[in-house]
Amino acid sequence: MKPNGLVTLLSDFGHCDSYVGVMKGVMLGINPALNLVDLTHAIPPQDRLTASFQLLSAVPYCPSGTVHLAVVDPGVGTERRAIALQLEFGWLVGPDNGLFSGLLDRHPAQRAVILDCPRWWRTPVPSATFQGRDLFAPVAAHLASDVDLAELGTSLDPASLLRLNWPQPRQRGLGLEGEIIALDHFGNAVTNLPAQEVQPGSVLEVRGQRLPLGITYAAVPQGDPLALVGSHGFVEIAVNGGSAVAVLGLKRGDRLILS
Amino acid sequence: MKPNGLVTLLSDFGHCDSYVGVMKGVMLGINPALNLVDLTHAIPPQDRLTASFQLLSAVPYCPSGTVHLAVVDPGVGTERRAIALQLEFGWLVGPDNGLFSGLLDRHPAQRAVILDCPRWWRTPVPSATFQGRDLFAPVAAHLASDVDLAELGTSLDPASLLRLNWPQPRQRGLGLEGEIIALDHFGNAVTNLPAQEVQPGSVLEVRGQRLPLGITYAAVPQGDPLALVGSHGFVEIAVNGGSAVAVLGLKRGDRLILS
Amino acid sequence: MKPNGLVTLLSDFGHCDSYVGVMKGVMLGINPALNLVDLTHAIPPQDRLTASFQLLSAVPYCPSGTVHLAVVDPGVGTERRAIALQLEFGWLVGPDNGLFSGLLDRHPAQRAVILDCPRWWRTPVPSATFQGRDLFAPVAAHLASDVDLAELGTSLDPASLLRLNWPQPRQRGLGLEGEIIALDHFGNAVTNLPAQEVQPGSVLEVRGQRLPLGITYAAVPQGDPLALVGSHGFVEIAVNGGSAVAVLGLKRGDRLILS
Repeated sequence: MKPNGLVTLLSDFGHCDSYVGVMKGVMLGINPALNLVDLTHAIPPQDRLTASFQLLSAVPYCPSGTVHLAVVDPGVGTERRAIALQLEFGWLVGPDNGLFSGLLDRHPAQRAVILDCPRWWRTPVPSATFQGRDLFAPVAAHLASDVDLAELGTSLDPASLLRLNWPQPRQRGLGLEGEIIALDHFGNAVTNLPAQEVQPGSVLEVRGQRLPLGITYAAVPQGDPLALVGSHGFVEIAVNGGSAVAVLGLKRGDRLILS
Repeated sequence: MKPNGLVTLLSDFGHCDSYVGVMKGVMLGINPALNLVDLTHAIPPQDRLTASFQLLSAVPYCPSGTVHLAVVDPGVGTERRAIALQLEFGWLVGPDNGLFSGLLDRHPAQRAVILDCPRWWRTPVPSATFQGRDLFAPVAAHLASDVDLAELGTSLDPASLLRLNWPQPRQRGLGLEGEIIALDHFGNAVTNLPAQEVQPGSVLEVRGQRLPLGITYAAVPQGDPLALVGSHGFVEIAVNGGSAVAVLGLKRGDRLILS
Repeated sequence: MKPNGLVTLLSDFGHCDSYVGVMKGVMLGINPALNLVDLTHAIPPQDRLTASFQLLSAVPYCPSGTVHLAVVDPGVGTERRAIALQLEFGWLVGPDNGLFSGLLDRHPAQRAVILDCPRWWRTPVPSATFQGRDLFAPVAAHLASDVDLAELGTSLDPASLLRLNWPQPRQRGLGLEGEIIALDHFGNAVTNLPAQEVQPGSVLEVRGQRLPLGITYAAVPQGDPLALVGSHGFVEIAVNGGSAVAVLGLKRGDRLILS
């Protein structure tokens, strides 16, 4: 696999400041031919589980040979390791704090390194608070420019990577108990129940309501709630033409039963 | 007209999730040389009229040969048609739900097709909830890579396209009654009154106030309201150095009289 | 110095409308090979001091030969001058209203022109309310395409540029009194106290609290406030894993003492 020149960016930096633009400026200074695509920068501050979910939802749709830079890094400047990983379809660069857990559950790391080689950093001593700019962005740019992973630092056993997972669904009577792991911009609530658990005639119980499982939002009348298999492969709760979060008062962590 | 490799994106996907990044990943997987530019992804969920206004405000300023991908699609997964259109200056790709009405009022479609040819989709059976990723983005990428419109699906009579329009201004006594059709980030309120209706000495009456028509925001003292012809060619209501929405309490649909 | 084809964009246009996309469409119509990078478009409306701070935080990290387009322009359409400047590392394009003050304090302008040559505009008579689209974006695109600064308009004495500065820190007893000049997305509060004023054992007093100066956020327990030297080279106030703005109730303009 050769890098394709594409680098995606995901962070909790938001859009109010120029932090994201700074990382892009640094990368284009290393290689002006890079193609930079934002996944999202609206991860809630320090929320590694949401970052892990968004990476899982997006990375598999990017072309093979892409470098994925992810910076949600509450431990910046501490002993937490900075890492780069090679997966079957591309590379991941970021802190070793569980960010990549969702992806690693399905796509094991083939190679991993600790980013301990200052030669590839912006400055020999990176800022203690913005390593996205000083360490991760430069490393991602070099990786996307065909520097070999092995040159970036000391080899690392992928089994030693920090993993961080949302709870697994579990059997509860005749049903499967899951929970809400993400709320999206439309007010859809994504659960941890995988598509393959859905049977014909399945019903989802949440907050005292029994929701039918439909195929499209329009399977129920305008304004009514339903469950369906979302585009990421998990059961999600939606309202046709509206917000399930608003209509049903859903929150992350809410329990539900699929039966 | 040849495609120029530029694809613009407009949607109601917001920036919290990675939906937009996913569409870009899919398109760059088809053609890594595409140039992707966001128009806006902050269309209020399912609001096709606002999408139509934003497309009308933006598309004519893009170079000839651009493909414009627009996904505001409350009927995703239902019988609503997926379409691609050729206009004098470029192509439009999205659902046939009225999104393109503002543009089509001024720039008739030269050719139109129903996107019913799975060969150009990401998967033969697209997701029922994210056809932006599985159908529209791939088709836009192929179109921008010089696949002919006719290959994308069955030809369609442009007269059959769904149209959706904000109310037209109408004569009311000596004046012209219009209404507010959009509120922008600065708190300016855009009306449906076209620039050519403005005469020297025109006055705009809204919420009991009579506003002078100026040329620049600074035509009135700091903090004062005025009307002027906005950059999109419609009369707009503004406050010099402030927000007309906040100062005058304006809302979409508010009536006003130009006299 | 030759232009490198990169143009950065900063504005107060927000993301709700398609104003930013329109400027990009106009630039790519002039030169489709340009590389466009957003710094931020979430400058509070008309807030030139915040724009000046964000430009100072971001521009120096972009490669040499970049054109920086900045449009925060409350005086659009009035007598305020439109300008382009050459600095040691690149070019600046925008209104002469103090936007560039932070950069100019550290990197003097080598050459400056008034943008009074309509040949490089989109239309001979630009809109009175959206000169970002009609004047600044086209000029930036031409500059990034190797049009010489001198061709863009009449030469200007850089000493005549409007400057706008946040207050300087001043001696107060044994300490240095500064103030908060910016609040970031994480709720960190950036002060006007430069890094070099920090001594071993320094303490920052704000809102009756005495904060230790740390190196990383994790220098204090989770949830506790501290001061540190931020990535932009100024003292900032933070909370480990939280928001200093929320925890300490900080606002722009709040005074503090470094001792």
